[in-house]
Amino acid sequence: MSLLVVGSIAFDSVETPTQKRDDVLGGSAVFFSYAASYFAPVRLVGVVGQDWPHEHTQLLQRQGIDTAGLTVVPGKTFRWRGKYQPNMNDRETLEVHLNVFETFDPVLSPELRRSKYVFLANGSPITQMKVLDQVPEATLRVADTMDLWINIQRDELMQMLKRIDGLVLNDSEAKLLTGDENLVRAGHKVRAMGPKFVVLKKGEHGVMFFSEKETYVMPAYPTPDVVDPTGAGDSFAGGMMGYLAEKGTADPKTLKEALAYGTIVASFNVEDFSLDRMKQIGRPELEERMLAYRRMLSF
Amino acid sequence: MSLLVVGSIAFDSVETPTQKRDDVLGGSAVFFSYAASYFAPVRLVGVVGQDWPHEHTQLLQRQGIDTAGLTVVPGKTFRWRGKYQPNMNDRETLEVHLNVFETFDPVLSPELRRSKYVFLANGSPITQMKVLDQVPEATLRVADTMDLWINIQRDELMQMLKRIDGLVLNDSEAKLLTGDENLVRAGHKVRAMGPKFVVLKKGEHGVMFFSEKETYVMPAYPTPDVVDPTGAGDSFAGGMMGYLAEKGTADPKTLKEALAYGTIVASFNVEDFSLDRMKQIGRPELEERMLAYRRMLSF
Repeated sequence: MSLLVVGSIAFDSVETPTQKRDDVLGGSAVFFSYAASYFAPVRLVGVVGQDWPHEHTQLLQRQGIDTAGLTVVPGKTFRWRGKYQPNMNDRETLEVHLNVFETFDPVLSPELRRSKYVFLANGSPITQMKVLDQVPEATLRVADTMDLWINIQRDELMQMLKRIDGLVLNDSEAKLLTGDENLVRAGHKVRAMGPKFVVLKKGEHGVMFFSEKETYVMPAYPTPDVVDPTGAGDSFAGGMMGYLAEKGTADPKTLKEALAYGTIVASFNVEDFSLDRMKQIGRPELEERMLAYRRMLSF
Repeated sequence: MSLLVVGSIAFDSVETPTQKRDDVLGGSAVFFSYAASYFAPVRLVGVVGQDWPHEHTQLLQRQGIDTAGLTVVPGKTFRWRGKYQPNMNDRETLEVHLNVFETFDPVLSPELRRSKYVFLANGSPITQMKVLDQVPEATLRVADTMDLWINIQRDELMQMLKRIDGLVLNDSEAKLLTGDENLVRAGHKVRAMGPKFVVLKKGEHGVMFFSEKETYVMPAYPTPDVVDPTGAGDSFAGGMMGYLAEKGTADPKTLKEALAYGTIVASFNVEDFSLDRMKQIGRPELEERMLAYRRMLSF
């Protein structure tokens, strides 16, 4: 099934308690695309500036990612600088320069407009709805959101939520959006706002899933090698949507498997900076860890 | 298999964001005993003051808990007062009055000395080792510990760790004890200090298990009705040890099932103050929720 992702493309500068990297490849749509590409062909839509090295495009293309929707415009690429706390779960944003992403107004080509599976990564609900307007044939529409939009575009976010099948968001965002500190109740309250299902991301503690008939929890895969958590949520979403696109269905059983694959991809992603760990692995490594994960959860 | 628990018996005063209770029945050994009693006969050893109402003893006895080791001495029973944050996971201790627990020096009867399964609940490592000295026939010795002992009796704690089969502790305690912020590494480091296995409790996020050959995670059962988390860790340990005592083995397969049962008992315990929720349920309710939990984790 064709999988479209629209979101940010960035240069990340990351400080962890022990290491530091400057201007490495990042952004929600990049982490998502790479993670999804293990499972299905991905079409990436995003914007970069003239400082964008062609090598990055080639890296994505080698993974089978369709970069026809990657637009280069005058200006600089989105830049983010963040610093992780010693627990590697909490982080502080030190700098954000939206640059060309600030006026990002995705216009899809006729081919991209026929996409069936659509993921709206980091972006304002207004932009996300503009994309939804352009994909009338989509059968699975899933979005991410952020505290920023909950704070400054709540009305638009509420409209957007009524137009999607699934929402992926952080625990703190779910609390902010619902005012409920109990994650189980918060998850259901978000679902009542529109999406058929909600995936609540808890960082190192895994994810919770909410649909009308199901509530469940999936722990994160316990990796001892957490080097850089940047992109964990986006690579989770990429693994999840990639698997759904591969299977061509989002029935409850497949969705659960998809959450598990997302968990596994994310567990690799955090083992190095940028895409560095994901670049080293392929489907066999994912399947091997998935087997260990299944064993872990069975008793 | 005979199951002995030695630990605190207390009157708890608890404030949550929405409710408040004063001087309700609590204490590590009480939550543990009640939780374990669904599975196996429990022998409780602890100390209370002259303010202890006989009804509390009767409540425990009705559950089949052997209270011969419950000593009443002149003075007041241990009192704890705490307040939970809105997230219901973090709490602040407002008052602690050790009272008669301060000089608690458990001397076991000849019958209790022959106990096979032993749980050392809240207590100093010195007291815990005094108990270990008295149970030479024990085949499974598991202890809990607290930040207080890590801070003020680290040497004694390190000695105690070399004498037990399993340790149950909180995530923050594991970080404090090892200086490692990564829970997977911290868990293995605690294990390297002596115990054959370590169970790391993460509150609403469940538990992690570490042995030489296994590392796994079990999420908490996602209950929307968290009323009072006091005793969650002790009721978890009670369910776990009770199930092991019932089965008469702590092989890897049984241990994993035991962690799941501990998770289920704890999920009931937090649904009301004191033992109030646990008093309403029996083995059938535990088995029913266990079935839902198994379904939740299978994919």
